Amino acid sequence: MKIRFSLDWFLVFVPVTVALEYLRPTDHVTIFVCACLAILPLAGWLGHATEHLAAHTGEGVGGLLNATFGNAAELIIALAALQKGLHDVVKASLTGSIIGNILLVAGASTFAGGLKYRVQRFQATAARTQSTLLTLAGISLVVPAMFHHLAGAKGIAKEGGLSVEISVVLLLIYTGHLIFSLVTHKQLFKGLPTSEETESRHDHHPGWSVTKSVTVLAVATAFIAWMSEILVGSVEQAAHTFGMTSVFVGVIVVAIIGNAAEHSTAILMALKNRMDLSLSIAIGSSIQVALFVAPILVLASQFIGPRPMDLVFSPAEVLAVVLSVVIVGEIASDGESNWLEGAMLLAVYIILGISFYFLPEMGSHEAVTGAAQAGASH
Amino acid sequence: MKIRFSLDWFLVFVPVTVALEYLRPTDHVTIFVCACLAILPLAGWLGHATEHLAAHTGEGVGGLLNATFGNAAELIIALAALQKGLHDVVKASLTGSIIGNILLVAGASTFAGGLKYRVQRFQATAARTQSTLLTLAGISLVVPAMFHHLAGAKGIAKEGGLSVEISVVLLLIYTGHLIFSLVTHKQLFKGLPTSEETESRHDHHPGWSVTKSVTVLAVATAFIAWMSEILVGSVEQAAHTFGMTSVFVGVIVVAIIGNAAEHSTAILMALKNRMDLSLSIAIGSSIQVALFVAPILVLASQFIGPRPMDLVFSPAEVLAVVLSVVIVGEIASDGESNWLEGAMLLAVYIILGISFYFLPEMGSHEAVTGAAQAGASH
Amino acid sequence: MKIRFSLDWFLVFVPVTVALEYLRPTDHVTIFVCACLAILPLAGWLGHATEHLAAHTGEGVGGLLNATFGNAAELIIALAALQKGLHDVVKASLTGSIIGNILLVAGASTFAGGLKYRVQRFQATAARTQSTLLTLAGISLVVPAMFHHLAGAKGIAKEGGLSVEISVVLLLIYTGHLIFSLVTHKQLFKGLPTSEETESRHDHHPGWSVTKSVTVLAVATAFIAWMSEILVGSVEQAAHTFGMTSVFVGVIVVAIIGNAAEHSTAILMALKNRMDLSLSIAIGSSIQVALFVAPILVLASQFIGPRPMDLVFSPAEVLAVVLSVVIVGEIASDGESNWLEGAMLLAVYIILGISFYFLPEMGSHEAVTGAAQAGASH
Repeated sequence: MKIRFSLDWFLVFVPVTVALEYLRPTDHVTIFVCACLAILPLAGWLGHATEHLAAHTGEGVGGLLNATFGNAAELIIALAALQKGLHDVVKASLTGSIIGNILLVAGASTFAGGLKYRVQRFQATAARTQSTLLTLAGISLVVPAMFHHLAGAKGIAKEGGLSVEISVVLLLIYTGHLIFSLVTHKQLFKGLPTSEETESRHDHHPGWSVTKSVTVLAVATAFIAWMSEILVGSVEQAAHTFGMTSVFVGVIVVAIIGNAAEHSTAILMALKNRMDLSLSIAIGSSIQVALFVAPILVLASQFIGPRPMDLVFSPAEVLAVVLSVVIVGEIASDGESNWLEGAMLLAVYIILGISFYFLPEMGSHEAVTGAAQAGASH
Repeated sequence: MKIRFSLDWFLVFVPVTVALEYLRPTDHVTIFVCACLAILPLAGWLGHATEHLAAHTGEGVGGLLNATFGNAAELIIALAALQKGLHDVVKASLTGSIIGNILLVAGASTFAGGLKYRVQRFQATAARTQSTLLTLAGISLVVPAMFHHLAGAKGIAKEGGLSVEISVVLLLIYTGHLIFSLVTHKQLFKGLPTSEETESRHDHHPGWSVTKSVTVLAVATAFIAWMSEILVGSVEQAAHTFGMTSVFVGVIVVAIIGNAAEHSTAILMALKNRMDLSLSIAIGSSIQVALFVAPILVLASQFIGPRPMDLVFSPAEVLAVVLSVVIVGEIASDGESNWLEGAMLLAVYIILGISFYFLPEMGSHEAVTGAAQAGASH
Repeated sequence: MKIRFSLDWFLVFVPVTVALEYLRPTDHVTIFVCACLAILPLAGWLGHATEHLAAHTGEGVGGLLNATFGNAAELIIALAALQKGLHDVVKASLTGSIIGNILLVAGASTFAGGLKYRVQRFQATAARTQSTLLTLAGISLVVPAMFHHLAGAKGIAKEGGLSVEISVVLLLIYTGHLIFSLVTHKQLFKGLPTSEETESRHDHHPGWSVTKSVTVLAVATAFIAWMSEILVGSVEQAAHTFGMTSVFVGVIVVAIIGNAAEHSTAILMALKNRMDLSLSIAIGSSIQVALFVAPILVLASQFIGPRPMDLVFSPAEVLAVVLSVVIVGEIASDGESNWLEGAMLLAVYIILGISFYFLPEMGSHEAVTGAAQAGASH
């Protein structure tokens, strides 16, 4: 409660960020920090509004709305970056969101819950289905990256078409996943009582109407878009000032900020021993980023921005996603968790974080060349 | 029933193909299409004969016969291609058969069965054993490919010996698998009632004697060999005419045709909620191709054809097999399936199919060079 | 019993090795063979002493002592090699110990036990936790290797820092694993009755006091250190004499010798249908090598030897560990084993062994260059 209370005070950073952006446009570090802080409470209100709306529309539709609006900031930030042609920033952000949710959010939740409860249990079939969807997400990044690596100069021209077609397949599977979890097998996902979650929040914001929920959703989303545009603009400069690479900023720093809402809710639910809900927020969010947000961006980029975006992520990004998918699959598949499993997820996140921190700056396409040069320069 | 009935009419394409081969040898597209169509009913009769024979010899031996004769066409086509030195065609065909069975056949079966039954169950231990055998198959392709990649010019000369020795190991494990499923742990595979399957076929072909079964087997196998030799001869030209690469033709087009018998039987059994049998046909066929057909071809190539074949598959082929093995392992390990799992298998097949379609033409050995050039040309 | 009896006679090779080292220092092959034979009984006595000590201190602490002293030889050999700057020998030894334990030791145990008992069961949650720890170990080798491959010339300087920081993370997880298995979840590991194991040994060495146990531990450890220093010194020459590469010697030959104690104990326990203990020795030893010995060596190398050691293993070594981790994970995760699973583990070991035998000599850092040259030379 204290955390959320103090977060609301951070709304003061909304006007501060706007003021700085117009008065001191060159002070990128301060703008970056203020925009990050301003997004924190907005993401929280976005989450609350979604939950209240879910209480009215029922669990099934509520889950859909929660997932969709929960990643709204991600989508908005990414669309803004696409228009500026910052494709590598978008890809880093998607990577960071995927690995951040399944390693940091799920890891911290499992670890915190595991400290309180010896063993925590959850619906194994639902967890395995989500784990397999993550594997599919991993495959959808591995294949274009390997294609880029294998197809050579002749194949580059075909990467756009390949990415568009894979995106359509991913959207179909995501639609299938919605039908599966909302219609044909919704009882598997009964472990996700969104209404109860909202109930526990009712102490603080009781009785939101649909109108109020939708209004807050719209306002919070609009402000996040505003802040995020300012944020993306300052990312590259801030990164250089701190000596960080833009990949590290995108994959680690921005991802932690952008997923603050998921973080707090997932950990809170794990501490209430509701691991089904906790893992569903963490893993479900990753699934949505990989199978919905990423392909939507590929398709949207055909119409907006300076050039289309493909699904060719850098080798480091693909590897990070694959390793995350592998270890979370091992941990989620048996339907129970403990603190050591949470610690292992966090360990993988830290190892990947350190590696991204040390990794020299290079674009996704240049990375392969870099690797070849590394070989040649020995 | 209708499908099989109409398939029998396709036997007319046997004389048509032979006539075209001698009268219009340059019309490769028509010969290719006619030979493909002629193989369809022949593969069906091969399957029927095997099943009838299995009804006489019992489930255990029947399973062995079914698996062995089910892949007879594969082996015959491959031996014909080996003699012509078309090693890349053979490897593409093996790859296509492996991924076609575990993604397309198992995927379509699981999807179709899942539309009819909410959850379908099967013997988990047997499924996991088969899944681990597939992992071993994946390893047996990864290791020679990495050896080729890592050993450099000095190592090329040793690839033949490496492939022969790995092939012997694989044949030993395949023998072990037969002993395991037919002798020491045959009760685990009771879920595979070949006699019942034959019973359901008895409506159409009741009471085949052993003599008749063996005769049909022999005749069907001989005709398939004839057609397949003509088919292989026209593949390269047909591929160029359609603008397809020979890898795509081998991995996708030929594999779908060559595994038509497995396709129809597996889907039919899934619709009867007999997932043990359905998955066993699909996964068992892949296991036999990887652990029996492939090593037999490597050993046979030491004596026939212009030069020995090794186990060095192209990176794209190895990746396709590995990804297929990973996702089918996740889906098969828990002993139950649903339509979304089938849809995910099909999605991976489509993603791989698109990639092979777009992948520029290059041989298995040139692929690595292509990758290096891709890096260098940036 | 006979095996151990005859092993004790091999103690005569201790003075023989020392004599040869001083009298005929150039006869590397004989010295190598004698040192290997001398280590066999010493490793056995080291194991016995640890077990007797465990009988006094209880299962929990006993498990810790067993694991720690069981890998003492490994650590001592490696520290000696580090001081001589033989970093590649150390890495090969670590790789060989990891894959030898999870493929050869666990494979032979599962196979031998499976021939006697149709199905052998063990605590699945404990096995899965250990399997996930192995996955983490695999990730901790994949990430630095990929970093080396991707970071290019700019990144080489940062590999030392990356390796040190990953090592600290691994040591924290290993500490967590100890707390998990000795404190918070020790009942999961009740299947590891070290006291019973000791009991079965009591026939041969009844009633060792703590003093005697510690004395034997100290003496055996000291002699192993002596022998191992001589052994390491002769490895490179012996390898060349036999025509073996130092990688093959390190990964396969030295690993088999160095893990003789684990081998015999694990197989013996499997034959007694105590698979929890058997797999725990095999997998637990691999975990300790990967999450304790390797990071300790990285940290120790900052202070001793000519230059620091990093976690950048050769691609072949990383691949071998990853493939081993994948297949043992599939086999261990369901809590039961059979002879075919053991045969499959042995098959992967043989396939990897053949590959390392044929792989041309190159250092871990040169391997990437070799791969690039392989591409370029085509």
